[in-house]
Amino acid sequence: MLIHKIEELRKQIKIWKKQGLTVGLVPTMGALHNGHLSLIKKSVEKCDKTVVSVFVNPIQFGPNEDLDKYPRTLDADRKLCEDAGVDIVFAPSPKEMYGEGHILSNDFLTYVVPPFFYVDKLCGKSRVGHFDGVCTVVNKLFNIVQPDFAFFGEKDRQQLIIIKKMIKDLNIPVEIIPCPIVREESGLALSSRNKYLTENGKIEALALNRILFNIKTCYNKGIKDVSALTETAYSFLNENHALEYLEFRDKDTLEEKKTADNNTIVFIAVKVENVRLIDNIEL
Amino acid sequence: MLIHKIEELRKQIKIWKKQGLTVGLVPTMGALHNGHLSLIKKSVEKCDKTVVSVFVNPIQFGPNEDLDKYPRTLDADRKLCEDAGVDIVFAPSPKEMYGEGHILSNDFLTYVVPPFFYVDKLCGKSRVGHFDGVCTVVNKLFNIVQPDFAFFGEKDRQQLIIIKKMIKDLNIPVEIIPCPIVREESGLALSSRNKYLTENGKIEALALNRILFNIKTCYNKGIKDVSALTETAYSFLNENHALEYLEFRDKDTLEEKKTADNNTIVFIAVKVENVRLIDNIEL
Repeated sequence: MLIHKIEELRKQIKIWKKQGLTVGLVPTMGALHNGHLSLIKKSVEKCDKTVVSVFVNPIQFGPNEDLDKYPRTLDADRKLCEDAGVDIVFAPSPKEMYGEGHILSNDFLTYVVPPFFYVDKLCGKSRVGHFDGVCTVVNKLFNIVQPDFAFFGEKDRQQLIIIKKMIKDLNIPVEIIPCPIVREESGLALSSRNKYLTENGKIEALALNRILFNIKTCYNKGIKDVSALTETAYSFLNENHALEYLEFRDKDTLEEKKTADNNTIVFIAVKVENVRLIDNIEL
Repeated sequence: MLIHKIEELRKQIKIWKKQGLTVGLVPTMGALHNGHLSLIKKSVEKCDKTVVSVFVNPIQFGPNEDLDKYPRTLDADRKLCEDAGVDIVFAPSPKEMYGEGHILSNDFLTYVVPPFFYVDKLCGKSRVGHFDGVCTVVNKLFNIVQPDFAFFGEKDRQQLIIIKKMIKDLNIPVEIIPCPIVREESGLALSSRNKYLTENGKIEALALNRILFNIKTCYNKGIKDVSALTETAYSFLNENHALEYLEFRDKDTLEEKKTADNNTIVFIAVKVENVRLIDNIEL
C-alpha cells in the first residue's frame, strides 16, 4: 500500500497498535538497492508490520549538494517493497512533511540537533547541518509511524551512532536495529550514489573497501598503532582518488583512537569522479 | 503514586495504554500553586489517567539564573497532587534524566531547538538557550510518558507558542491543552517566583496586570495603534520597576504588531526586587 499523507498513515498505524501488532520502520530516501533490501527483509522478518518511508529529505542536503539530481525511482521502489512483503510504503511530499511556504531553516523550523562533538568530524565536517536535517526528519518519522523497531544500515555509520545517541538523549521509545553493510562481489559497498559512477569509476571506488579490509588484516596480525595502520592505505590511492578522511574512532562516542582496539571503527571517505563515497569497518 | 525512575514509569504507562486509557501530562518544575492546580484539575477531568512531572530542569536555566535557589517542595507537591486525583507524580533526578558524568551542553547532548524567530524575542532575548532546554525536556517527557494530552499554562505564553510550534514541526502525537492564567484576587498572576517577593514587592508587582488590563480596556474602547496603547503603560511604573519588555505580538507566529487586533497578545516582563515577573493578555 502506497501512502502519501501523514494522517492516512497515522490511521493505519493506530489500527495496528490497537491490535497489539509490532511495527518496523525502514527510513530511506528511495532509489532502493540490495542494501536497503537487507534492512527491509530484517524488518519484515522481525516485525508484524513494516513501513518503508521513501523521502528525499531537503533539509539534510547542503546548498551545493545533490538534492535535485538525487535519484528518484518511486515506482521501482514500491515494486521492490511489495515483493519483499512491506505493508506500507510511505512517500510524503516535501510540502506534506514541512508545510507550505515554509522557509526550511532554523529561523522558522524546530530542529533536532545532535551533539556538536558527534557532528564536527567525519562526514559532518564537510556536510554542515546534514545531521541536523537527518535527526529532525528521523524524529518526525518516529513521531508519525511510532515504530517499535527502526532499521539503519551500518554503511552510514556516523548517522547510526548519532541516531542512537538521539534515541538515548531524548528517551525515544524506539529500538534501533543496525544492519551490516551490503557489498557487491567486488567489495564495493552498495550506495544509491554508485549510480553516478562510470564503469571505470566503480573500479577506482574499490580502493575504499580494499583499504579498510587491509587495515583489518593488519590489525588482526597485531598492528594496533593507528599511524602505522593508516600508512598501509596510501598504496591503494592514485590521482583519481580525493581522500577526504581516514579515521579511527570509538564505535559509540566517536572519540579518536591513537591505538586501535575492538571498539574501533575505521571510517573512510573518498571522492571518485567527484562522487563522494563512504565506507567503514569495525575492528 | 510517586515514581522516580523512567523505566518504572514506562511500565505503568504501558499497562494503561494496553487498557486503552487516555493519559494526560502536566509538566511542572514543582513548587505547585493554584495555577498548576488548575492544569492538574483539567487533566484529571479530561483524561483517564494523569501524570504530573516535577523536575527542575537544569538545562533551561542560564548560568546566572536561579537553578540552585529555585523552590523545591516535593512533599507538598505530592500531597497536592494526590488530593487532586493525580495518578502518578513523576519526579526524576537530573541524573535519571540526563545520565551521569554528562556535560549538559550541546557538545554532548542532543537538543530540540525551536526556531530562532520564536526565541530571539521576549523572554528568549534575555534567557539565551532557555527555550532549547524547555523543548528538549518537554520532548523527553513526551517520549517517556507518551501522553494523549499535555497541559500548559498561558502564563508562559511564549513557551506555549513554542511548544505548539514544536509539536507541529516534529509531528508529535500529543494534543496541547492551553490553560488560562490564574490570578490572585489582586490580579497578580500566580508564579512560583512570587515567593521571592516581599509584601511590598507583591504590591509593586500588580503593575504588570494593571498595565495589561488597562491596555485591553483601551483596545476595547477602539484604540488599535500599538504606540498609543503602549503609552498608557508608563503611569503604572515607578522606580521599583525595571521594565524588560512590553510587546504586542501575533498569538501563533509571534510576529510584531503595529496595529492591535484580535490575534494579538500583549506580553510584559518587569523586574521587581530583582525578581523577573512576566504576564500577558490576549486582546
